[in-house]
Amino acid sequence: MGKGRLEAFSDGVLAIIITIMVLEMKVPHTVNISSLKPVLPVFLSYTLSFINIGIYWNNHHHLMYAVHRTNGKVLWANMHLLFWLSLIPFTTAWMGENNFSTWPVALYGLVLFLAGIAYYILAHSLIHLHGKSSDIAVAFGKDQKGKISVAIYFVAIIFSFLNTWISLTLIALVAAMWFIPDERIEKKVDQIDKTNP
Amino acid sequence: MGKGRLEAFSDGVLAIIITIMVLEMKVPHTVNISSLKPVLPVFLSYTLSFINIGIYWNNHHHLMYAVHRTNGKVLWANMHLLFWLSLIPFTTAWMGENNFSTWPVALYGLVLFLAGIAYYILAHSLIHLHGKSSDIAVAFGKDQKGKISVAIYFVAIIFSFLNTWISLTLIALVAAMWFIPDERIEKKVDQIDKTNP
Amino acid sequence: MGKGRLEAFSDGVLAIIITIMVLEMKVPHTVNISSLKPVLPVFLSYTLSFINIGIYWNNHHHLMYAVHRTNGKVLWANMHLLFWLSLIPFTTAWMGENNFSTWPVALYGLVLFLAGIAYYILAHSLIHLHGKSSDIAVAFGKDQKGKISVAIYFVAIIFSFLNTWISLTLIALVAAMWFIPDERIEKKVDQIDKTNP
Amino acid sequence: MGKGRLEAFSDGVLAIIITIMVLEMKVPHTVNISSLKPVLPVFLSYTLSFINIGIYWNNHHHLMYAVHRTNGKVLWANMHLLFWLSLIPFTTAWMGENNFSTWPVALYGLVLFLAGIAYYILAHSLIHLHGKSSDIAVAFGKDQKGKISVAIYFVAIIFSFLNTWISLTLIALVAAMWFIPDERIEKKVDQIDKTNP
Repeated sequence: MGKGRLEAFSDGVLAIIITIMVLEMKVPHTVNISSLKPVLPVFLSYTLSFINIGIYWNNHHHLMYAVHRTNGKVLWANMHLLFWLSLIPFTTAWMGENNFSTWPVALYGLVLFLAGIAYYILAHSLIHLHGKSSDIAVAFGKDQKGKISVAIYFVAIIFSFLNTWISLTLIALVAAMWFIPDERIEKKVDQIDKTNP
Repeated sequence: MGKGRLEAFSDGVLAIIITIMVLEMKVPHTVNISSLKPVLPVFLSYTLSFINIGIYWNNHHHLMYAVHRTNGKVLWANMHLLFWLSLIPFTTAWMGENNFSTWPVALYGLVLFLAGIAYYILAHSLIHLHGKSSDIAVAFGKDQKGKISVAIYFVAIIFSFLNTWISLTLIALVAAMWFIPDERIEKKVDQIDKTNP
Repeated sequence: MGKGRLEAFSDGVLAIIITIMVLEMKVPHTVNISSLKPVLPVFLSYTLSFINIGIYWNNHHHLMYAVHRTNGKVLWANMHLLFWLSLIPFTTAWMGENNFSTWPVALYGLVLFLAGIAYYILAHSLIHLHGKSSDIAVAFGKDQKGKISVAIYFVAIIFSFLNTWISLTLIALVAAMWFIPDERIEKKVDQIDKTNP
Repeated sequence: MGKGRLEAFSDGVLAIIITIMVLEMKVPHTVNISSLKPVLPVFLSYTLSFINIGIYWNNHHHLMYAVHRTNGKVLWANMHLLFWLSLIPFTTAWMGENNFSTWPVALYGLVLFLAGIAYYILAHSLIHLHGKSSDIAVAFGKDQKGKISVAIYFVAIIFSFLNTWISLTLIALVAAMWFIPDERIEKKVDQIDKTNP
């Protein structure tokens, strides 16, 4: 079975998730510059989530590039990933509207943590289908970045009960790790990949 | 007439349905863990509907795979299916916000029942177009699962007036029947298919 | 320039329009069957608009089928059509929430009237591009149905100030004319097409 | 890496942005014609933004037409453009609901200004990838229109603190420049392009 509709459906869901989040930025009823002040944390929260969904779309794009076929397990593994990502508008709004308090940040981290695991399951269901010597297995075999991300999300959840700004820094760090084409990070991850094949 | 745009439009509608449902999960205005308590039934309701829409997308994907062409009747049979599925966000929210009361559960079951019948009509309009010896006729000829699902939904509607949890268990059972690649169910349905060709 | 992205973008917009309309069906806060009563006119209004958008998607699908290329004018003619169609969720909600009163029905008719004209402009910009002997010119040359629809919408707007139910009957009649594969209507339109080529 | 999914994802996001804006046109609770009066500025604001998003889709369509491949930088440059465009529903609503006051108009201009710069970055990341003698470099080399647009947006932001109608006229002028196939403007821009290659 082809991958065309899987990609089209995933693109649709990700495009909607990334766009409806903006509906949570409630339009202020007053017109001076200070009326944007309560919108600011929601905007920052939105920006962080936009980047995170962007990273997932980017990675999904790369992952599917090396894929030749799908099966029932892959379709459901993909649906499972989309389920956790679909909760991001909710957690983003709760976090943004409450100035990054403990429980909202913890829940935000938890959903990212579960999405990270779902991505791992999806990748492995694809490797299982294509075989260990396939392009996708070779490409994903180097995925220490994914495991590190999930681990950092876990630490971020714990830190949210101490200081939410540490959690947010950790979550932003994961985003930066995927976002910035930082040569050092790339090389470091490559080294880890080489020593732990 | 090709099936490309039919698939693209259906993917779009299903992607939007599955994603806007999450907008019904109203963001709480307080920040402690207990403020998530009233969200929980809405979340459970959302999860059930996410899986149901996922099943429909999955089945639609499989159905269209064997299709070579469409006509006016097929386009409208597909639109009819999308109509009932488009009501799921409404019934999901009514059910979730009212802690799975009688009428909301009955209506939820009714919409699933009507969507099941619409799917059956779509499949038969496709079989009618492709002929009885076509791939799609052979593939769908084994669809006892669809008929059983519609029957169970009917029973679930009736039970909602006695005990809604029985209804929800029946609805969840149908989802599980399609979702879990349970060897026994697969075999049983295969046997029914063999004895009633 | 190809037609692929024009179709994809139009499918996306139509899929969203048809689906977000359902968000206007406000979930009742009570759980008895009578709490659905105020939702009923909104539901009927939604159903009418769902069918109308469905007809537009269907016709757009058929129109684009015979198209080989596009240009700037076609892209904007298409955008113009989508603009009027994008207002349907607003007019649908205003009409449904106010029990089909005069002004809401008149505005509903007006938007359909303008969408009908926009469709005509789109078709003619495509015919202009492909030439008078092209497939699309031949196919659309028979479009008396489109002109009749626009005329009926105009009459419906006027009648909304006398009796809105006449307007709604006329609007439903246009939908039925496109929806029902009624042999007599088809033949009559064919005859008109033959006598007025 | 192909451009197919980049186009599909962008089409999806733009289709959603253009359509959810209409949700900000709040349905009036009364039924006389005067109840549409407060909706009018929101409608005008919506129309302006619909045209602006339409222009971006149109330009994106043309830009991608000449593109043969993408890379990580292009994907993020595209995401960056979509980010600013995704804020348009928010700025449109704030501007429309407050009768085109100073700060809302300034913010509206700012988001368009930033989207204009993001488009420029996207185009240059594509030119960098394809080389200076590529089709896309030749096609975009003539883009004085883009630079002029960004400059006018900058002026519009400043004027919003003096008279917002001047700002809106300037913003509408930019839209007209892209929208109307005005021969004079086309020729003037061509002349500028020729003298400043």
